Amino acid sequence: MDTATSPRELAHPERGDIRLEAVLHALSDPMRLIVVHTLASGPDPLSCSYFDLPVTKSTSTHHFRVLRESGVIRQIYQGTSKMNELRRDDLDALFPGLLDSVLTALARQAAAGGHRR
Amino acid sequence: MDTATSPRELAHPERGDIRLEAVLHALSDPMRLIVVHTLASGPDPLSCSYFDLPVTKSTSTHHFRVLRESGVIRQIYQGTSKMNELRRDDLDALFPGLLDSVLTALARQAAAGGHRR
Repeated sequence: MDTATSPRELAHPERGDIRLEAVLHALSDPMRLIVVHTLASGPDPLSCSYFDLPVTKSTSTHHFRVLRESGVIRQIYQGTSKMNELRRDDLDALFPGLLDSVLTALARQAAAGGHRR
Repeated sequence: MDTATSPRELAHPERGDIRLEAVLHALSDPMRLIVVHTLASGPDPLSCSYFDLPVTKSTSTHHFRVLRESGVIRQIYQGTSKMNELRRDDLDALFPGLLDSVLTALARQAAAGGHRR
């Protein structure tokens, strides 16, 4: 079940429908990890165009959709922009410590020189 | 770089070559999560045939290979059996708390009735 009610409202899984496997899959890509890391670094929603990912626009759109459909981010239209925010409350409630451990692991990997930015 | 030196020795990434993205991908499948959960539940290496996964043998072999090539498990031949063990020391050293948070999340999801066993 999703919460979309109009073409301008994007489909999101409800908290109870978020699956661990889908969240781990969403987090298993370096571009999507950059998005999650960036959203986790500040309190404000960010537009898709804020992220200067080194991929095509359609690939970037795909990455945001995977993050949204897995329940990792919420996307809301503001005018013609899609604004993105991390669903930290939902993820922390469902899977305590998971998001933080992934973000910590990402930082450690980056510090070790293995993370392409 | 891998440590394979003979056809009977299977390729494994060294600790320093284990990538967060690959580990998350390996953990993003329900069958592979069953394997990881089972290996994490006891101290002993277990043969592939110990796991009665509801998939074909070739799919099962694929799942074990993904786990091995990502660095999540170590596979060693014993006679004609492949024995599997979790690389917990390597994972905990690289990504502290990650494996435990995934196992905890899996248990919570199972308790909520969402995990097919």
